[in-house]
Amino acid sequence: MSGDRRPIGVFDSGIGGLTVVRALMERLPLESIVYFGDTARVPYGVKSVATIEHFTAQIVDFLLRQEVKMLIVACNTMAAVAAKVVVARAGGIPVIDVIEAGARAAVAIAAGGRIGVIGTPTTINSNAYARRIHALDASARVYSQACPLFVPLVEEGWLDHEVTRLTAQEYLRPVLAEDVGSLVLGCTHYPLLKPLLRDVAGEKLKLIDSAVTTAELAAASLQQAGLAVTGGEGPENATYRYIVTDVPLRFQTIGERFLGRSLGRIERVDW
Amino acid sequence: MSGDRRPIGVFDSGIGGLTVVRALMERLPLESIVYFGDTARVPYGVKSVATIEHFTAQIVDFLLRQEVKMLIVACNTMAAVAAKVVVARAGGIPVIDVIEAGARAAVAIAAGGRIGVIGTPTTINSNAYARRIHALDASARVYSQACPLFVPLVEEGWLDHEVTRLTAQEYLRPVLAEDVGSLVLGCTHYPLLKPLLRDVAGEKLKLIDSAVTTAELAAASLQQAGLAVTGGEGPENATYRYIVTDVPLRFQTIGERFLGRSLGRIERVDW
Repeated sequence: MSGDRRPIGVFDSGIGGLTVVRALMERLPLESIVYFGDTARVPYGVKSVATIEHFTAQIVDFLLRQEVKMLIVACNTMAAVAAKVVVARAGGIPVIDVIEAGARAAVAIAAGGRIGVIGTPTTINSNAYARRIHALDASARVYSQACPLFVPLVEEGWLDHEVTRLTAQEYLRPVLAEDVGSLVLGCTHYPLLKPLLRDVAGEKLKLIDSAVTTAELAAASLQQAGLAVTGGEGPENATYRYIVTDVPLRFQTIGERFLGRSLGRIERVDW
Repeated sequence: MSGDRRPIGVFDSGIGGLTVVRALMERLPLESIVYFGDTARVPYGVKSVATIEHFTAQIVDFLLRQEVKMLIVACNTMAAVAAKVVVARAGGIPVIDVIEAGARAAVAIAAGGRIGVIGTPTTINSNAYARRIHALDASARVYSQACPLFVPLVEEGWLDHEVTRLTAQEYLRPVLAEDVGSLVLGCTHYPLLKPLLRDVAGEKLKLIDSAVTTAELAAASLQQAGLAVTGGEGPENATYRYIVTDVPLRFQTIGERFLGRSLGRIERVDW
């Protein structure tokens, strides 16, 4: 018996979700993955809710046609404003999203304490993290900060640059002033800034990497639903597909920085 | 006789082209303008050529249905990679683009000298400025530099911020080392950085603002083609329409910063 070998569907507005794929590969090496990145229409973080919902529905329908056994919303913007659209169309297969995973990890660590959340303007303005955290622990205090420059800084590759350090100091100042005990990295680009953010925030602050917490939640959910690959399967049987709506400049370079390994062949669909 | 009162069509991938509208309002106060910003799909600067051509054609067809008398490509990315698409569909009305305007101004000033050009990665990688400059003056030397962080820094409103200054110093260093006499601001967002860039580059360097040069070229072209509003018309008869594909967060605030005045009512079309 080798369990359910259908792939996990992971999707994002662009390439940031590859940090979630990387965490899944490490946590669930036997599982196959289909990644979908809507690179022709990225970034979603500055678009309206109606537009984001429309795009999300299109992607979910596409992944369901690839016969995925689970959907992972690896985009904080889509998870913040269109999570219901995903569940409504998923036809009963498990749905996991980065905000739920981050909120659960934050509450488990903070235990009624003070939690910081950073993300894109749309994610932060949606208040989705605060709502999900409060649904789990009404006594938690949440302090949020939008960091619109972090995504372009990561994509520029300035992961350890004075400009990025100054920007982080400015963005984190109000959150750190609230004496938070943990900080949720509420954008899939931010795990690449972890070393710099740790420097700026200090060792005492616990950074919650929602790529890692999403992979943990996916592992638990697959087990619970009896959908995991099991038995005699080795990681050599796991397959990875990367599908995008556009192959922009520097895609390979940036993508491999996120994934931490070679991307192999990239498939393109034209919408 | 009041000339041709049909509007000028100005288009961009987002809101940056409003700096061109602003320059047109100042240079041609009697002319009506229809502005189209493809805010649902911005930024174009990271997309492939095929995608940009497809989007450009859609916008041109839309503006022609608004009965414009002239088309202004107020987006360096579209001008760099899709200028031929615009001319092919324009049905004989005059077409002006920011790259042509910037190249002409640079050559007029530089007179066989050394010219710097800054822009988004797609604009710079397309080599469009160098090609257009060389077509006008084969002896000119062109030194180009992509500045991917300038657009997000302008949209964050950090127009006079230490982070922006450090970023500008890093981006301009190689161009300034070539001892250029003028610097073309090859992106419609960059006019907002003019004071800071002048500080970083020094007073001796001539900054070429392609919004201003585009308005000059439009004025000359309207006169030449006999299409200008003339005679007893006053500026009170000029109308302005702003049409976008999405109304994102902070659109009004950022748009008015670009335009230098109130935006009034914004129309949205759903593609």
